[in-house]
Amino acid sequence: MTAPAPPGALHLIPLPGIGEVAPGDDVATVILGALAAAGIDLGDGDVVVVTHKIVSKAEGRLADVAEDADYRALAEAEAAAVIRRRGDLMIAITRHGFICANAGVDRSNVTGDRAVMLPIDPDASAHRIRVRLERASGVRLAVVVTDTFGRPWRRGLTDVAIGVSGMAPIRDLRGTTDATGRVLDVTEVAIVDEIAAAADLVMGKATGVPVAILRGLRWSPGDGRATDLVRPPAEDMFR
Amino acid sequence: MTAPAPPGALHLIPLPGIGEVAPGDDVATVILGALAAAGIDLGDGDVVVVTHKIVSKAEGRLADVAEDADYRALAEAEAAAVIRRRGDLMIAITRHGFICANAGVDRSNVTGDRAVMLPIDPDASAHRIRVRLERASGVRLAVVVTDTFGRPWRRGLTDVAIGVSGMAPIRDLRGTTDATGRVLDVTEVAIVDEIAAAADLVMGKATGVPVAILRGLRWSPGDGRATDLVRPPAEDMFR
Repeated sequence: MTAPAPPGALHLIPLPGIGEVAPGDDVATVILGALAAAGIDLGDGDVVVVTHKIVSKAEGRLADVAEDADYRALAEAEAAAVIRRRGDLMIAITRHGFICANAGVDRSNVTGDRAVMLPIDPDASAHRIRVRLERASGVRLAVVVTDTFGRPWRRGLTDVAIGVSGMAPIRDLRGTTDATGRVLDVTEVAIVDEIAAAADLVMGKATGVPVAILRGLRWSPGDGRATDLVRPPAEDMFR
Repeated sequence: MTAPAPPGALHLIPLPGIGEVAPGDDVATVILGALAAAGIDLGDGDVVVVTHKIVSKAEGRLADVAEDADYRALAEAEAAAVIRRRGDLMIAITRHGFICANAGVDRSNVTGDRAVMLPIDPDASAHRIRVRLERASGVRLAVVVTDTFGRPWRRGLTDVAIGVSGMAPIRDLRGTTDATGRVLDVTEVAIVDEIAAAADLVMGKATGVPVAILRGLRWSPGDGRATDLVRPPAEDMFR
């Protein structure tokens, strides 16, 4: 039995009941159906976190990969550039500028011998979902589209944001002071990546829950795209 | 007004009321005092997330850095190896094996002309805190000690785990299947890093809230150290 949450807590709410998504489905409609079935109303300021997989499926970003060679060829085709290879592992830059394994092509949580590619423009996907959810619910929302990336120096994977709409991807603390009155050394927090990681705690890879709602976070409406998170090549010391 | 959280939600609870921590203080005692003042009881399965800064201060990991040159010299002394330099920025490997800016030496949220170093053994720090909190509360807990790291290819910083006690740092999904029955490609989730990032959403850099409680997560008691997250140099393609 979990103890209750005191006031001031932030809540991560898994959204069950989203079945298989097919090309042509509307993700916002799918989410609204699951919300209704679960008896969950969207609230003002909720952040709706969506794993890209259902977005990609809805957008038809699927390909047949009967053989491992097909899968590898698809990943090569999706890569704008390859920065490292080791055995079958390819670390690539995607069309969006993200750096990840196999250019984001993934075979998990796909039926049949198919692989899912990243959405063509995940920020635009997030925007479409947000507009439709806001229209249906009448509340102000943000939407974050996520994928699971590795890190060069740390084992294990974490979820990060590959698309965002409604909020700035980075919380800029420049000019603010810490609790001692000192101007902060740390100035830019990748808040949408922290949101993506948090949401994965209730979604998980094995559970088939592709949507979570983050409730209670204080955030300011803002523009910006997840591609703003890409470190410009001129600042990148490790590519 | 935030909408209520339905059953099944995970909660992130900020712990206010932790003042300045000084060398010799006992972090668990400080946390228990703040919990009592806030009227929060620890519950079975809670994960207590602690920014390393108060741990480092309690352990006396502070140094005077009146000048920028002193700060840079301290960071050099803390680095086991330097892997990149650009201007004043140094990307270093710490004694623990973590790769981060300035070997984890930081001046924010410290009073006076001082800097804070990482704890000598953050896993041991986490263990001491957990044992004392469990003894006082009578419930089973995990403790995660965090710091704020940059990422080579993504702008902005996120919190990661540098110490853990009570749970395995990585959730190993090898052999498990996804919602379609396919064995997962993604096998290792850095769950303590996702917990650290999630907790930062209620702690923040500017708010002076150095402790958060994650409530409602399903996790299995386990051993393991945050240093297990360090990718072995032989597997590292980017150092």
